[in-house]
Formats: sequence, C-alpha cells, structure tokens
Amino acid sequence: MIRANDPQLTSWIDVPENSDFPIQNIPFGVFKTDTLSPRVGSRIGDYIIDLKSLFVLGYFENLPFSAEDFDTFSLNNLMRHGKKATSDLRNRISKLFDSTHTDLKKNDHHVSQVLIDADKVEMLLPIEVGDYTDFYSSREHATNVGTMFRDPNNALLPNWLWLPVGYHGRSSSIIPSGVAVHRPKGQTKPDPEKNPVFGPSQRVDFELEMAFITFDGKPLGDSISTEEAENYIFGMCLFNDWSARDIQQWEYVPLGPFLAKNFASSISPWIVTMDALEPYKVEGPEQDPEVLTYLKYEGKKSYDIALQVAIQPENAAETVICNSNFKYMYWTMVQQLAHHTVNGCNIRRGDMMGSGTISGPTPDSYGSMLELAWKGTKPLTMNDGSERKFINDGDTVIMRGYCQADGVRIGFGEVSTKLLQAK
Amino acid sequence: MIRANDPQLTSWIDVPENSDFPIQNIPFGVFKTDTLSPRVGSRIGDYIIDLKSLFVLGYFENLPFSAEDFDTFSLNNLMRHGKKATSDLRNRISKLFDSTHTDLKKNDHHVSQVLIDADKVEMLLPIEVGDYTDFYSSREHATNVGTMFRDPNNALLPNWLWLPVGYHGRSSSIIPSGVAVHRPKGQTKPDPEKNPVFGPSQRVDFELEMAFITFDGKPLGDSISTEEAENYIFGMCLFNDWSARDIQQWEYVPLGPFLAKNFASSISPWIVTMDALEPYKVEGPEQDPEVLTYLKYEGKKSYDIALQVAIQPENAAETVICNSNFKYMYWTMVQQLAHHTVNGCNIRRGDMMGSGTISGPTPDSYGSMLELAWKGTKPLTMNDGSERKFINDGDTVIMRGYCQADGVRIGFGEVSTKLLQAK
Repeated sequence: MIRANDPQLTSWIDVPENSDFPIQNIPFGVFKTDTLSPRVGSRIGDYIIDLKSLFVLGYFENLPFSAEDFDTFSLNNLMRHGKKATSDLRNRISKLFDSTHTDLKKNDHHVSQVLIDADKVEMLLPIEVGDYTDFYSSREHATNVGTMFRDPNNALLPNWLWLPVGYHGRSSSIIPSGVAVHRPKGQTKPDPEKNPVFGPSQRVDFELEMAFITFDGKPLGDSISTEEAENYIFGMCLFNDWSARDIQQWEYVPLGPFLAKNFASSISPWIVTMDALEPYKVEGPEQDPEVLTYLKYEGKKSYDIALQVAIQPENAAETVICNSNFKYMYWTMVQQLAHHTVNGCNIRRGDMMGSGTISGPTPDSYGSMLELAWKGTKPLTMNDGSERKFINDGDTVIMRGYCQADGVRIGFGEVSTKLLQAK
Repeated sequence: MIRANDPQLTSWIDVPENSDFPIQNIPFGVFKTDTLSPRVGSRIGDYIIDLKSLFVLGYFENLPFSAEDFDTFSLNNLMRHGKKATSDLRNRISKLFDSTHTDLKKNDHHVSQVLIDADKVEMLLPIEVGDYTDFYSSREHATNVGTMFRDPNNALLPNWLWLPVGYHGRSSSIIPSGVAVHRPKGQTKPDPEKNPVFGPSQRVDFELEMAFITFDGKPLGDSISTEEAENYIFGMCLFNDWSARDIQQWEYVPLGPFLAKNFASSISPWIVTMDALEPYKVEGPEQDPEVLTYLKYEGKKSYDIALQVAIQPENAAETVICNSNFKYMYWTMVQQLAHHTVNGCNIRRGDMMGSGTISGPTPDSYGSMLELAWKGTKPLTMNDGSERKFINDGDTVIMRGYCQADGVRIGFGEVSTKLLQAK
C-alpha cells in the first residue's frame, strides 16, 4: 500500500467529517489570493497548503523539484518530473501533516505561512492543457443517444463495442470551476422545412464527465500499451462538457461536434492523483465481443467514484438531478490511452482526456439533461417548483464526486458553473 | 500599397529567377544550424536571414521587439506584438535588403553574420500550435467525397452551404516539412461481414490544404466578425493533412475523424504574411444560398495561390499529380474565423486553422489520392511506370504553392514528407 493512502493516518489539522480532503487525498491545484501570486497548492480539510512556501522553507529537500515547479500558474512544470517524483511529493506532504510527525507542526511561524483558509483563495485552472480529447465511453449514454436520435433496436453504432470512440476538443475554452459561461449563439435549424436561423442556443446542456491528465508521453510514432498506460496518467478531475444540443444537431454530420462544444468546458480545480485513487479500483464491465489484442488489459482498471449533479436556479436552493458512478464506464482509461496512441499519435504533459458523458443504468443516473428529461419529453421538477428540459439562464450546474472505503472518503470537490444569458 | 510589396523593389542579394523568396515575400520561420541555436529567421533568395543577429546588431531599433522574440524556438513570442508590429518588422527587413539602402549592405562583417546559405540550416516547426482546427471548405472536395460515399444526387450534406463545417484536430502531431512519417497502424473493417482487424493502414492519403495562423484573439465569450477577422490572421503555410482512409471509414461516425488524422500533420516551414499576400487577393466564389448575416463580408477575401502536389517514389524522379488553386475555396478565412468564434469560442496566438482539402473543378486538380484515383478505381501512373491508388511506403509527398502577378512571384516553398513503413 502507498503510505499516504493508509486509512489509519490522521492529520494534526482538523478535518471536518465528510470532507473531500482528508490526509489520504493530497490533491494538486493552483491558487492565488489578494496578496499571493498564482502558485501550486494542495489541500487538507478546509486549508489550502501553499507548496511554494513549503518548498522555500526547505521541506521538499531531497526531492527533484525546483522553485519554478511551484512558483507558477499551472501544474505542468511539476509534472515534468514524472510519476515517481509526484508520488514522492504527495508522500512527503502527507508526512508533514501526519499526526505522528512534528517537523512542520512544531514551527508555528512556518505553519502560519503555509496554511491558508480555503475560502480566502481563488482556485485557478490547474493545467495548461495541450491537446484535449473527449471519449464517448459510457455504453448507457451511447445507447440513450442512439435510441433517441437513431434506432432503438440498433442504438449502438457498429464500431462502438470495438473501440473507444473519441474526438478532439478545444483546449482554449477549458475553464475552472467558478467561471460563468454565456449561453452560446449559433446556427440551428429548428424547423426542418425552413432555412437555418441564427440566435442563442435553446438547448444548453451539461455533460457529467471525468477527465484524466497525462504526463509526458513517447515520441511521435510510438504507442503506449494498456500495460504501460497507468505510468502516463497523473490524476483526475470532474469535467462538465457544456453542450448546445440544437447547434450540435445541425452541425455534427459528418465531422463531429464543433461549436456545440467549444464555447466552454469546465473542470474542477483539484487534480486527485491516481495514487490517491488506488484503493478505489474496481473491475471494469465485461466486454463482449472480446476486444482486439491491443485493447486487452489485466487487473482492476476502473474506479468506484460516486458522482452527483445538481442544478441551483438563481436565488433558490439546489436540486440533485443525477446520481451516477464512474465505474459504469465501458471503456477504461488504459484502453482509451492505448487506443489514442496505437497509430503513433503522441501525447504530451498536460493533455486532458474526457471520459464522455457518464450515464448509469437507471434514469436517475443519466449524465445529461438530454437523457434525464429524455429529449424534453420528461421535464425535471426543481425544489422551487420550476421545470427544466435543459439549462436556464441563471442556473448553476454543480457536479461533485468522491470515493469511499474503509472509513476514508477521497473527494474531488466540485465543478460549479453558472450559465449567463447570451452576450 | 504596403511598401514592402512594391513590385519595383529589388534586393542587393541575388535572387534566382522563379525563387519563392524575392524581396517582396519576407516570410517568417524558425531555424537552427550545427552551431546556431533555434532562432527566428526570414529568407531572401537562397539565403536565410538570422533575425536574432539583426536584432542584436541594432537593426530593429524603434520597433517594439525584444531579444526573446527572436532568440526562441517559435514565432509565438514575436506574434504577441500583433499585426501592426509584425507588419512594421517585415517593412524594416525589406528596407535593409532593398538595393537602394546601404545601412546593412555596407557592413560586410554584419552581412556575413546575418546571412546563411539556405542549404546549411534545418528549418523547424515555426509555430507552437495551441489549438488546431480543420475546415472542410472546398465545395468540389465535399462533393467528390459525398458522391463516392453517399449519394451523387445529394452529394453535399444539408448544412454544407450554410456554414463552414469544421472540427478540432490534434496539435501534438503537427510536424515541419522534412520529418518523415510512419504508416499508422489501427483498427479497420475491410470486410463488412467480418469483425474488424488491427494492422497497418492500407490506404494512407495526403490532403492538399493551406493553413492560417492566428494572433491573440478576444476573451472567451466574445466573437470576431468577418470585418475584424483579417486583423487576427498573421499568415499562411502549406499543409498536408495526412489521412488513413480505412481507419477513418471505420471510426468516424458519429464523432468525426480521430486516429485517421492525428498520427501526423505536416506544414511548410515559412509563414508567409497576409501582408505579402495582399496583392493576390481575388473575389471568393458566389455563395448561393445567401449566407446568414454573421457570415457576410465585403471585398476580396480569397487569394489566388497556385498549388501543386507531386509524389516522388523511392529512388525515382517525382511525378506531379495535382495542380489546384486556393481560390477555389467556397468559404473564406474571414468566414471561417467568424463562424469559429460566433459562439464565444476564444482563439489564441499560434492557433492553426486548416482550409480543408483544396480540390478544383477538374479531375487533375483534386487534392487527395482518394479523389485523384477515385477510390482506387483510376490508379495514377508515376513517371517510373508504377501505379498508385494511395501512398506507398518510401514515397515522398511534396506540396508547393505560389502567387504570381506584376512580374513578382511570392512562394511558400514546400512541405515535403516521406512515408516510412509501419513501425
């Protein structure tokens, strides 16, 4: 077991019950405050840990990091040191805050420099994303979409069970939790008999996804096998793949979604490392037909991560509209990465790969309004009595996720994004 | 007229007849030599101009540039100063090499420092590409593909004449001319009745395209109008959008091309500025139906750029297989950029936008093997007697392009890429 994952560990910092950030988590992110420039941080309970300060104070001695790995606006520098180094860093931070260690605790002056109230910081985009790829790996989601828009009896397209379908998305419009999004304008064709029209999208939707972030890959022309794949994955975050369904419907044949997606993609600010998620590994679903050799893998490669989506209307309390789980995904991350690189495509440090909408088997576990309200035919009722077929101006969409086992809960925090009216 | 475009200008450097690089061109690129680190350069005739040295020697006085704009491995730093500054820089370089100016010419020591034989340098990738978007804007290409794979009587999909169809591509695998590419491996379904198989692609193709490179754009949520678009475009290059047709056919429904494209995308090393291309502007084709308001534009926004593709088999002379022209494009760059941002999607400095395959009206002007050999039914004969349906291992695909008017020829050089056997 990775030392920092020991369920017995406790911290000398008080961690509220059901916090996403016990000492077993130690995620990585980037923050700033009114007085502190953007820098790398971690979190325990309700405190941000200023890793730049810990570095400057000498607490990362004998680790391969330098000042520019922490005194920077993204995790990309840190990640250049690779999996072992970032694992060692997490273990070191864990030790510093472990109840049985006093190196840091005993130095009040250092502690006051290093710990910051979580509500005093602004969390920034944690990664400078190079290429962003989105997969389409939930069988239930693909089946629901195929049922609604094609043929219920042949809902899955012929390639779907043979390869993890994916496509390239837009990196420039990836934003962190808390940044509001304007309703996009675009071309749609509401009346099939009439010409297309231009205006604000009438069907703005979320997609409940998770994303993983990669380390440096191999040179162009080389592939990463399913067996090697885990060495190239740094961690995960929550991901809301905003979608404008009416724009998508008119534009996406034959080259895929474009303006329907690239107006915004929101991610949660903490990258939870694959190390921290290790105790929550589970078997992926059985794959039938048997996959081709390059997609085979051994062992547990899926993760039991409970996911939730809520809508908070303007000036009203939130309503939970979806409870899903990452373990429902048909294709695993190691398969996605092996497939992505099997043609020699190179990945780079800071690439982001989305899972695709995560829908579960029951109607309350579907990962988009399109599916939850079934193409507008089954509107959802909010706690304030209002109905939703899609997302309204002023609504905030909140996604949360956590793992739980052996009395430990490792969470992702949330990705919370308000939809503003069209500009 | 922009001063540097004056057809009467001559340089005190000898420029061979039919050179792509007369004094009226002054493109920008990045090079290195055995002894010089990567740096920004330009070119006249058969000489590379070391712009880092010109800067250090003080020849860019009163321009807003600093050392890191030239002493760097991409043009991205330079481009942060925007359109006016890069125009002024081109004019300054033009003046320094103009026959009527002796500031530089008279200083032999400086001249020997600044000029390098073109065959002594290695040209590098000129741009650190953020996001790469590919359009699909040639009516003839879209019609040919629709005819081959769908219905000859309804070859164009319903949205095609209403919006410039585009999709996101992969930035990590964009490579400069001269870097060889391995035949990609992947999943294909050669027999519709049998299961898919894995192996080297049997249908590797080129796509003759051009690409434009953007300056810094507007913040997320804002749009760039057709009227504003030219202010955000730095220049253009040749672009070979390598494609594996058999992988594409099996994977692309419903989310578009992915592994069929992302194994490599080759570009020519010189970015020819929009300023230099100004004299070659022509009317775009008439658009019917009339486009929606946000896609309307006034004036000449297309360019007369002659394009050529040749295949050079291993140990044989090349055969020209295509003569096309950029002016055939149905959608213009200003429309592509306006469409791309109309939903609020932000562009950044160094984004690359491909035109899509440029096919002309006649069979010898089609921009891909798929069309030239019409799905393998009309193989092309090389000068050495061999036949081609697609690209063979050992073949080098060479694309060239130039503009000509008033006795001046502005060229792009070439993008030349050898296809190696599968790894």
